[in-house]
Amino acid sequence: MKAYVYVSLKKSVLDPQGKTIQSALKKMGYKGLEDVRQGKYFELTLDGGLPRNDAEAEVTRIASEILTNPVIEEFQVRLEEQP
Amino acid sequence: MKAYVYVSLKKSVLDPQGKTIQSALKKMGYKGLEDVRQGKYFELTLDGGLPRNDAEAEVTRIASEILTNPVIEEFQVRLEEQP
Repeated sequence: MKAYVYVSLKKSVLDPQGKTIQSALKKMGYKGLEDVRQGKYFELTLDGGLPRNDAEAEVTRIASEILTNPVIEEFQVRLEEQP
Repeated sequence: MKAYVYVSLKKSVLDPQGKTIQSALKKMGYKGLEDVRQGKYFELTLDGGLPRNDAEAEVTRIASEILTNPVIEEFQVRLEEQP
């Protein structure tokens, strides 16, 4: 099973890195962009020893306790069964 | 419309940052992890001036030309209509 954790800055937090990318893209002539925000992305491969519910709980715990700074960041978790 | 671009290292490229996270998590007692890989994640807000197909083409062009280093990275693009 694979778990994907997406960490991004909270909407209320300024993202200067995203703004820099946005203005660079604008200068380079790319059209149609209103806003750019950057985040982190983790791909966790699970060993399959846990049932889906427990795995989801464990990944959520890892995401909230370790991978995210709760003061300025928020996260989303997505689990995917492998073929 | 929102576009999400996920950039990760190619499978054939070593990811020391992911390995470090993995061994840290293991030492801290989190269970069930086989592998961790880290990537970047961009959230692009489009101004809606382009039809969906053109927007997707533009975002794919931005992702492949600017946001990704094609030698070591690969990307995925996902478009989402907003309510």
